[in-house]
Amino acid sequence: MSLVFTKMHGLGNDFVVIDGRTTPVTLTEAEIRALCDRHLGIGCDQLVLLTPPTDPEADVFVRFYNPDGSEAGACGNASRCVSSLLGNEPVLQTQNGLLPTWQENGLITVSMGVPKLDWQEIPLAQACDTRHLPLYDAAACSMGNPHATLFRSIEDAATLGDALEHDALFPERANIGFAEIRSRTHIRLRVWERGAGLTLACGSGACAAVVNAVRRDLVERTCVVTMEKGDLTITWNEDGAVLMTGPATTVFTGTLV
Amino acid sequence: MSLVFTKMHGLGNDFVVIDGRTTPVTLTEAEIRALCDRHLGIGCDQLVLLTPPTDPEADVFVRFYNPDGSEAGACGNASRCVSSLLGNEPVLQTQNGLLPTWQENGLITVSMGVPKLDWQEIPLAQACDTRHLPLYDAAACSMGNPHATLFRSIEDAATLGDALEHDALFPERANIGFAEIRSRTHIRLRVWERGAGLTLACGSGACAAVVNAVRRDLVERTCVVTMEKGDLTITWNEDGAVLMTGPATTVFTGTLV
Repeated sequence: MSLVFTKMHGLGNDFVVIDGRTTPVTLTEAEIRALCDRHLGIGCDQLVLLTPPTDPEADVFVRFYNPDGSEAGACGNASRCVSSLLGNEPVLQTQNGLLPTWQENGLITVSMGVPKLDWQEIPLAQACDTRHLPLYDAAACSMGNPHATLFRSIEDAATLGDALEHDALFPERANIGFAEIRSRTHIRLRVWERGAGLTLACGSGACAAVVNAVRRDLVERTCVVTMEKGDLTITWNEDGAVLMTGPATTVFTGTLV
Repeated sequence: MSLVFTKMHGLGNDFVVIDGRTTPVTLTEAEIRALCDRHLGIGCDQLVLLTPPTDPEADVFVRFYNPDGSEAGACGNASRCVSSLLGNEPVLQTQNGLLPTWQENGLITVSMGVPKLDWQEIPLAQACDTRHLPLYDAAACSMGNPHATLFRSIEDAATLGDALEHDALFPERANIGFAEIRSRTHIRLRVWERGAGLTLACGSGACAAVVNAVRRDLVERTCVVTMEKGDLTITWNEDGAVLMTGPATTVFTGTLV
């Protein structure tokens, strides 16, 4: 197939973006797997397909695909990349709803929606105070996907992440964040991602870390989160929505041969 | 930098090829590292830079760079990719000398030169019969870089590779091949590469496996070597040169933004 694409990343979380808005693009699961392969294809954490919106309030429908070909609901870093690529502060329609985006000082902000805090909604396997889980005194919330945050050294992510992801407390498994509180406005974070292991940057994990830290009164509602390749600024608005602000980088444009 | 490149692979051993023959391209070590990064850059096992030849018998000078920015002497899979990209069966000039290439039935052949069989030349740390090392009864040779071949299950590569690479017998460390002899004309191979670990395909490792197996009279001088993503055909000519034949695939062309 002769297909044009753009390779982008947000803090090293990288994406192949294909624009199917004017000329429809249909990709099979096998084709998505082939494109995402880092040796045989283009290589990326997720493939992002743009199609015409079905909601009149949206500018574009954005679909996110994992390297195994399955579809994901949403991805904050990919949403910021799409916003940067299209310009004009588009409203993104996703399987998880509408995501407003905007740009300031070269950084892109996306509204990630309202976190879910009840144990049934995360979900957890048993009733508990989601600010203090019976597991390393972690806190948990859902940003569309289940996140637990442990307030301890980021170095523990490699040794504890895998077992915690699969702990019986998480019936749908969980992303496990390791957050060092550096000040009331600064967190260092490393995330063990569900199904992916240690990653360079996890946008929803950064949101979850700030939400969980605010609920423990460890940080203010606006907080810088430092990950492997740079910073995100997360704001948990008084109205409940979580805003993620950070860079979005276009690396190259390509044409499949 | 606005730079045009081609992404190619030979059996999953993947390369970014940059043509600096007409417009000179200068890359710093830091730029090479950035381009080779699979999340922040283009991503590849090696970056390949084409420049005008200085030898009148060559068609192009080919330089190979590792992801850490250092320069490598030669790479068989990358040489086949360059031959495929340029067409017309070019003679490649490399730091290791001239490499003739040719094409037949869609496959590319590159002459990898004459292997070195003496223990000092590989090099080994002590005098020994290089067909029977005092280490898992391996055999060793140099294809420009040191290779040991163990005739045992490819499954052992993950468990034994790292320790053998660093065994005191190899003062410059070594690539460690695990070769299953399937017939007189067929080897299954997995290679633990020096400094890189398990890889999808190692062209010089395939050459070394056939050379070492021929010296043990386990296979004929022409032999198919099956690796993770496909086959190479290796011929150890009576004149001493080793020929490597296999596919070279262009995946996409790109322009850095």
